[in-house]
Amino acid sequence: MDDLRIEKYLSRRSSLLKASQVRELLKWIGRDVISLGGGVPDPASFPLDELKQILVQVIEEKGSSALQYAPTEGVEELRQALAKFMGEKGIKAEAENILVTSGSQEALELVARVLFDKDDTVISENPTYLGALQAFSLYEPRLEGVPMDDNGLIVEALEAKIKKVVASGRRVKLAYLIPTCQNPTGKTLDANRRKRVLELAEEYDFLLLEDDPYSYFYLDGVEPRSLKSMDASGRVIYVSTISKVLAPGLRMGWVVAERDLIEKLVLAKQGVTLQSTTLCMYVLLEALKRGLVAGQMPKLREIYRVRRDTMLEALDEYMPEGVTWTRPSGGMFVWIEAPSNIDMDALLPVALNKYKVAYVPGSSFHVDGSGRNTARLSFSYPPLNALREGVARLASLLVEHMSRVS
Amino acid sequence: MDDLRIEKYLSRRSSLLKASQVRELLKWIGRDVISLGGGVPDPASFPLDELKQILVQVIEEKGSSALQYAPTEGVEELRQALAKFMGEKGIKAEAENILVTSGSQEALELVARVLFDKDDTVISENPTYLGALQAFSLYEPRLEGVPMDDNGLIVEALEAKIKKVVASGRRVKLAYLIPTCQNPTGKTLDANRRKRVLELAEEYDFLLLEDDPYSYFYLDGVEPRSLKSMDASGRVIYVSTISKVLAPGLRMGWVVAERDLIEKLVLAKQGVTLQSTTLCMYVLLEALKRGLVAGQMPKLREIYRVRRDTMLEALDEYMPEGVTWTRPSGGMFVWIEAPSNIDMDALLPVALNKYKVAYVPGSSFHVDGSGRNTARLSFSYPPLNALREGVARLASLLVEHMSRVS
Repeated sequence: MDDLRIEKYLSRRSSLLKASQVRELLKWIGRDVISLGGGVPDPASFPLDELKQILVQVIEEKGSSALQYAPTEGVEELRQALAKFMGEKGIKAEAENILVTSGSQEALELVARVLFDKDDTVISENPTYLGALQAFSLYEPRLEGVPMDDNGLIVEALEAKIKKVVASGRRVKLAYLIPTCQNPTGKTLDANRRKRVLELAEEYDFLLLEDDPYSYFYLDGVEPRSLKSMDASGRVIYVSTISKVLAPGLRMGWVVAERDLIEKLVLAKQGVTLQSTTLCMYVLLEALKRGLVAGQMPKLREIYRVRRDTMLEALDEYMPEGVTWTRPSGGMFVWIEAPSNIDMDALLPVALNKYKVAYVPGSSFHVDGSGRNTARLSFSYPPLNALREGVARLASLLVEHMSRVS
Repeated sequence: MDDLRIEKYLSRRSSLLKASQVRELLKWIGRDVISLGGGVPDPASFPLDELKQILVQVIEEKGSSALQYAPTEGVEELRQALAKFMGEKGIKAEAENILVTSGSQEALELVARVLFDKDDTVISENPTYLGALQAFSLYEPRLEGVPMDDNGLIVEALEAKIKKVVASGRRVKLAYLIPTCQNPTGKTLDANRRKRVLELAEEYDFLLLEDDPYSYFYLDGVEPRSLKSMDASGRVIYVSTISKVLAPGLRMGWVVAERDLIEKLVLAKQGVTLQSTTLCMYVLLEALKRGLVAGQMPKLREIYRVRRDTMLEALDEYMPEGVTWTRPSGGMFVWIEAPSNIDMDALLPVALNKYKVAYVPGSSFHVDGSGRNTARLSFSYPPLNALREGVARLASLLVEHMSRVS
């Protein structure tokens, strides 16, 4: 059967496909490797009993409707319930502003599909979510990264970048941001900067794509308002998911946007997945009706606060001088920076095979392949003692190699 | 909020997006319109009680694993079970040859993404499945249609088309076929022609994409062997789904192909949906273990045989002279052809508003926009008396307009 050489049939586009190191690292879960890799939710956060009840109720009440085809845009009652849920987060939306997607990954894919032409300028935080880079890269935009400090994206650097783009005769089409508990850094954009980002979008007439999976369990007091809740002209496209707050295996995400754009995204979705899972749409609907999603938040805050603090304490305890890290306001990730001569890409096989610890090399998250001395550590999944031990192992790896190269 | 004109931000690609008339027509279901539109399964075919049991069992046995992230290629046990299931259909496959997708729509999207460059020549039956046209069109291949007769694709016409392509200095990259109970015509490619198609693929070195949602309830005795089961060199990419045989709302499809290609498709899927629904993967796994999918087939054959025969009898009874139709060997569709001066696209609003019957205009299924005097009628969904009444209404519409234009 293996006569055929598939290479000669592949599209040019397929050469742009890169494996997600996060997905690759999933394979190490359950071996003797401690994973600080993927942002895999703590299974203790899943409301298992209630979801079982809901599944039975959905089949009993909705019967065959829960197994049948449904509209591409999503079950109408769910769109209404998500609009209401968004209202509770300060975002005004009607059902017609909502598109249900197969996780937020599909939302990112559809937005890119409908908006990006080759060589369009798209700005993002640098580093940024690698799944977004995967979705965007196939459409070949020019990705321009803007650095962050402890208060998130540096708006002066954003403005300078925009001016440079405009001076070169191009325009910025869209800026992709994860303002709250950013992936991979855990940083949160402060309120004043959010206002400034919106002003810049108005002034230079570009769209904003706000990716918001983590704000549900913001840990540092009152979370800043979302960009979408401050959006006066409809230029913010908001994307979220229940993957981190309920269960990722249900693959439920959604987009909030102007109706015109939702209609285009629906057409795009017809060709990609036709519709999301009807069964899971009804499960999410019932979960929202019961207030289960909102009810999860205190538990999630407790779980992830303890996890974050455990990782930060372990970093304080074990990491050698010369390594720095972020103190995230929530989410699932701490971002570490080793001395510039340490190559975290090259060290990954050593980490996995010798030190039995997994992390995601930071270069994966950079739009320009830089950041080889950085890494993302997830505190979401391993038991607390393993979390400490994982950090200790990583520290040993760094100690060994920092002494070697210095 | 509606200040923004989204048009000026859209990609060039987005102008290629066309609404699926099948999806649009779904909206008419449940009104006083009888739908002969979408291929919506008879809900009586869903094994509701068993699926409820399975859902409870999955949550109890798999627990949080059923709600957690899973590998992009699919849960390993499910890939093994699908490989075994394929074996029962005469297709040799290992788990590594299987990619689980979110319905077969995503499979078509991923194959197009990984294989098609702009202006690549892709051959299909004409008419063909409009969801495939939607998935393919974004990648801008040259679509070349080949006509069918009662035995399916005319292989001499296929060969002539290939020779014409080759003579013009191009090559055929892939032929997309629905050999069994074709959508939209219900036609089945006979066994000798299948062999010839494979010979031509070898001779002219192109790939075959075999889409097989309907062979599970083939009605005319022994179904012909799938192209994939006769594939000696690995050039057949096989796509199927449980949408018609178990439940479409679970969105479970899969691809069978050479491992090299599966690996590329997995990378593509990471950027599109990350993974399919973990919960539904475990549901399908348990359904396969219980033999539920195979066990459905006698019931499905009975349901759809009665439905098909009811529609064919009603067509015999009501249709005016000058209208012809296919006698499908299975699937969900009958294809009708009205006299050439009848425009089924233009008549659709009249059908919906005045005659209260829905069908899908045939032009949607044509690669070249031809076939405006044709339509696809689905016999899968309405109660049998409504099915008869729907055909009677459509006949009245045609009688009125055939007399008017003659």
